[in-house]
Amino acid sequence: MELHRREFGALLLGAATALSAATPASAESDPLPSWNDGPAKEAILKFVHATTDPSSPDFVPAEERIAEFDQDGTLWVEHPVYTQVVYCLDHVGQLVKEKPELKHKEPFKAVLSGDREAIAKLSMREIFEIVLLTQSGMTVEDFRADVRQWLATARHPRWNRPYTELVYQPMLEVLSLLRANGFTNFIATGGSANFVREYSGKVYNIPPERVCGTSQADKFGHGKDGKPVLIQEPKLILNNLEAGKIENFWLLYGRRPVFGFGNSSSDDQQMLEYVKAGSGLRLSAAVLHDDPEREYAYGPAQGLPDTKVGTFSQAMYDMAVKQGWIIVSMKNDWNRIFSFEK
Amino acid sequence: MELHRREFGALLLGAATALSAATPASAESDPLPSWNDGPAKEAILKFVHATTDPSSPDFVPAEERIAEFDQDGTLWVEHPVYTQVVYCLDHVGQLVKEKPELKHKEPFKAVLSGDREAIAKLSMREIFEIVLLTQSGMTVEDFRADVRQWLATARHPRWNRPYTELVYQPMLEVLSLLRANGFTNFIATGGSANFVREYSGKVYNIPPERVCGTSQADKFGHGKDGKPVLIQEPKLILNNLEAGKIENFWLLYGRRPVFGFGNSSSDDQQMLEYVKAGSGLRLSAAVLHDDPEREYAYGPAQGLPDTKVGTFSQAMYDMAVKQGWIIVSMKNDWNRIFSFEK
Repeated sequence: MELHRREFGALLLGAATALSAATPASAESDPLPSWNDGPAKEAILKFVHATTDPSSPDFVPAEERIAEFDQDGTLWVEHPVYTQVVYCLDHVGQLVKEKPELKHKEPFKAVLSGDREAIAKLSMREIFEIVLLTQSGMTVEDFRADVRQWLATARHPRWNRPYTELVYQPMLEVLSLLRANGFTNFIATGGSANFVREYSGKVYNIPPERVCGTSQADKFGHGKDGKPVLIQEPKLILNNLEAGKIENFWLLYGRRPVFGFGNSSSDDQQMLEYVKAGSGLRLSAAVLHDDPEREYAYGPAQGLPDTKVGTFSQAMYDMAVKQGWIIVSMKNDWNRIFSFEK
Repeated sequence: MELHRREFGALLLGAATALSAATPASAESDPLPSWNDGPAKEAILKFVHATTDPSSPDFVPAEERIAEFDQDGTLWVEHPVYTQVVYCLDHVGQLVKEKPELKHKEPFKAVLSGDREAIAKLSMREIFEIVLLTQSGMTVEDFRADVRQWLATARHPRWNRPYTELVYQPMLEVLSLLRANGFTNFIATGGSANFVREYSGKVYNIPPERVCGTSQADKFGHGKDGKPVLIQEPKLILNNLEAGKIENFWLLYGRRPVFGFGNSSSDDQQMLEYVKAGSGLRLSAAVLHDDPEREYAYGPAQGLPDTKVGTFSQAMYDMAVKQGWIIVSMKNDWNRIFSFEK
């Protein structure tokens, strides 16, 4: 009944917003309190108002209010390593117990050595290999249960908190604002869909069926007790990076989003370009991680350090400016980053 | 705003049903008027009551009330030929204009000859080839627009009505009953997802993002005007038949349905087996087409004629009986088949 109550509340809120559409939201109460006043906040509020006010030339019917969010680096912290990669590295020990022949094979050897420099040098192909093998051989339900268990105990090294607390408070406010205005929020992640689906409902109020991501095959068969099962296979079936992120969104949902939020050129650029190019008023936005004090600073856009995790290239920055995306500066646009901050 | 109002209404209805959960639904008004009283109708009503009454040991939280429906032969007529195949055959002429080299190649030659016997003998592999080629080369939006236009003029040869009127009224009532009780309905079709998505909202009140189906790849690129586009490619990426139907459901949505409805052993058997085997009260149901007067009769279960389209094998029938699925006899369980009937 939980969903009922939540959705009911959202609808009531949406209805209230629609009734008071003539007055700007900020006049009544601020739906984005963790955002500083400035062009980014203003653009988001204006967009929501213009697409939901029935008298607006940019009005979008509720069923077409589809919003697509990247996860790593957009909704939660992706540094120093993607959370799901940490999960998989933590499972390499178990994997080589079951398959000892991997012990002396790269990239598993490097992971087992604990040599942080060698681990940091792993290529994307090697990381995919680790992900596929550590996440295979179990039923789809057992995998989800293991993710749940891991998340309950794993801690981020910098904040010593569960990863699910390291979500950006300003982005939770954007998700709520959209939901209250009849938008349907989706996650499109470069990570495994079925990793994110384990907590997307609780953390983002986005149910599993609205999480699209990189996916391995699952295979129908029968267990020892004769019952049908779906077993995860070491076979990549959907690559949700770069252009794959928007190709797969159409494949899964048959929708063109009107609102897109990302941060990485290797992950979100084509998605944001495609969203913005739709006919009618569209919003594409990208988070620039430029706050080394409160979070991290990486680019290389605008001279920020070039990192392997969540790269924001200068080329994407230039495209964003040219096409009129919203660039969100963590440092300047967000007065609060995490909900646990004072 | 349409979706808002519809969802709002459904929630209110759901709330009303929850409040009156102690009295059986039929005592107040019949939510399934096109169903004759009998074990099938009774089983559906009992299941909905048992899974939504908070005091029931079989209660299922609203967010887990996932229902999966096959389309061809379950929600609408699939004889004498699957509607989407008719669409593709109608497009072979256009295809060979663009690619004249196909004119003398099978299976296109057989289609162009108009030889009904030769067309009826096309293998599934040949039909897939026709589907892939006739649905490729255009943007994803142009394909949907073409489907919309075709549906507006095409007519079923027997009833001389649009295909979208040949949906089963009793099944529309089941969809409404579930929706009013907090279930989320999904379509899982052996046909192309993006064909069905064009009309699923209007006809079934199921939006595109909840239609899973056989899918070809789409590719990100740029049009002549420099704008980003997604172009449909002649490459099969998801085969939504047999075990693929339930494997892909997990791939797309990360959910195990608690309610499944199908009709064909080559299409729905594994899905229905998997749904029924879940822990807790589950309902799997299959439509037996045994009414040659009002619709069609085909099996070969129970000695009905064996056909190539939507085969219901005796083996699936036996599995259904053994595992306690609901078998729906069109002839005996439905007092009305189409909404246009008196």
